[in-house]
Amino acid sequence: MVASAGIIIIGDEILSGRTKDSNINWIACELDNLGIRLKEARIIPDESSTIIKTIKCFTNKYTYVFSCGGIGPTHDDITTECVAKAFNQKLYKDSEAMRRLKLHYKGTNIEFNEARQKMAILPTNSELIDNPVSAAPGYRIENLFVFAGVPKIMQGMFNSILSDLKGGKKLKSKTVSSNIGEGLIAKDLEKIENKFLNVKIGSYPYFKPGSFGTSIVLRSEDEISLKKASEAILEIVIKLGGKGKIFDGNEIDDRSL
Amino acid sequence: MVASAGIIIIGDEILSGRTKDSNINWIACELDNLGIRLKEARIIPDESSTIIKTIKCFTNKYTYVFSCGGIGPTHDDITTECVAKAFNQKLYKDSEAMRRLKLHYKGTNIEFNEARQKMAILPTNSELIDNPVSAAPGYRIENLFVFAGVPKIMQGMFNSILSDLKGGKKLKSKTVSSNIGEGLIAKDLEKIENKFLNVKIGSYPYFKPGSFGTSIVLRSEDEISLKKASEAILEIVIKLGGKGKIFDGNEIDDRSL
Repeated sequence: MVASAGIIIIGDEILSGRTKDSNINWIACELDNLGIRLKEARIIPDESSTIIKTIKCFTNKYTYVFSCGGIGPTHDDITTECVAKAFNQKLYKDSEAMRRLKLHYKGTNIEFNEARQKMAILPTNSELIDNPVSAAPGYRIENLFVFAGVPKIMQGMFNSILSDLKGGKKLKSKTVSSNIGEGLIAKDLEKIENKFLNVKIGSYPYFKPGSFGTSIVLRSEDEISLKKASEAILEIVIKLGGKGKIFDGNEIDDRSL
Repeated sequence: MVASAGIIIIGDEILSGRTKDSNINWIACELDNLGIRLKEARIIPDESSTIIKTIKCFTNKYTYVFSCGGIGPTHDDITTECVAKAFNQKLYKDSEAMRRLKLHYKGTNIEFNEARQKMAILPTNSELIDNPVSAAPGYRIENLFVFAGVPKIMQGMFNSILSDLKGGKKLKSKTVSSNIGEGLIAKDLEKIENKFLNVKIGSYPYFKPGSFGTSIVLRSEDEISLKKASEAILEIVIKLGGKGKIFDGNEIDDRSL
C-alpha cells in the first residue's frame, strides 16, 4: 500500500485572494520526493464547523494529513480547538511548550502574555512538533500534523517530522518534450497508456512566443516500463513529423529540441 | 443573501507538485472584486469518482462553482464526462463548438482530428463559454462554469462570463499596519471584533530583515464601522507603545511606519 496524504489550508486570507498560498506546492514536492501520494488539498475558511468536518474526513481517508494555519495567538486562530473537537480531546496547557515559549521571549522586550500563552494550549494526546523559527510548536495527533501557516515556519516544522513519514517507492518520472500539438498525439497516447498500465501519462501543452508543443510526463515505480513507454512516445512524435527529446524528471526548462 | 462560490482545480500535475496552481488566487481576487464570497477551493486528482462527487457537493452548496482543468483533447481530460454524470446529462457533439474549432484550425497545418473534435463534445443542457485564446469553448451547466486549466485561457473564459455573475456588495477593506507583535495585540483585537460585529478582522504577522510587525486587515460591507474599527485598533497600537498607519485596501507593500 502506497501512503496517501491530504493537505488542509485554513485561512480566510487565502480565500479572499489577499494571500497567495505557497504551502500546497511546497508540501506536494516534498511528498513526491518521499514517495507519498498527495490525493487532495482543500483551502477552507476560519469556520469551526468546516474545519472540524474537513479534519474528520481527511484523517479517515488518508495516511497522513497536514494542516497549515490558525495556530497563532489571535482570536482568528481557532485550529487547535477544532482539532480537539474532531478527535474528542480536551485542551490543556503543555508545560514543555510553555518552557520553549518562555525561553524564546526571555531577554526580548516581548511580553509572554496570555494571548501568546494560548500557543502552548494543545489537545490532549498530541505530540509537539519543533518550530526552529519562532519556538511556538506545532503538534501531531494520530495521523494529523498541525503546522503554522507562515511558509518558513511550516517548512521548518515539516522538516522536523520527516522521520515520522513512511514513504513508498518514489515515482520515477520522465518527460518527452515535443514540438507537436496535444491534439495530434492524443489518440496515440491513449494506446501507449493502455499498453503500459503501470505508467501514468499526463500531457501538458505549452505555449511560448514563436513556439508551442506538448510535454508528456510519464510517472511509474518501474524504471523499465518508464523507459520503454517514453521511447514509444518519442517514436510516435517523430512518426507524426515532430521533434522530441526525453528528459529525466518532470521539470523541463530546456525545450530547445 | 451574499453570493458564495467554490473552486475545483482538477489535475494530477498540481498534486504531484509539478505545476504550481495560480488559478485559485486569480479567481479569488476577481470574486472579491465582484462581492462574491469564495468559501472553499479543492485540488483533486484526475479520478472520475472524486470529480463527480466534488461537483455534486459544490454545486449543491455554493451559488457559483468554477472548475479548472481537464477539458483538453487527451485521454487524461475526463472533466466533461464527469460533469455529464454529475448532472445526469448525455454527451453530444455541439455544432457551434465544431464550427469555432474548424475555423480556428483552418489555414493552419494543424489537423482537426478526432482527438481535437473531443473538445466540441459537451453535456446536454450546457451553454458555451467563449475562449478568446484558443477557440475550444468552456461551458456552463446550471451553476457550474467549466474552464480550461491553462491560466491565460481560464482568465479569458472567466472574463467572458462576468455578466452572468451577480455579486453582492463588495467588502471594503482597510489595513492597520503596525510594528507590534501579533501576540501583544491579540487580546484587544478580540474586544474590537466583539464590539464591531459587522467587521471581520484578520491578523497577519510579517517578518522582514530588521523589522517585524502585524498587519491587521478589516473587512466589512459598512464603511462607517470599518473606519471606526480601524481607528480603534490604531489607538490600541499606539497605547501599546507601537506605531501604526491605516491604509485603504488589503495589500500593503509599504510598511514604512
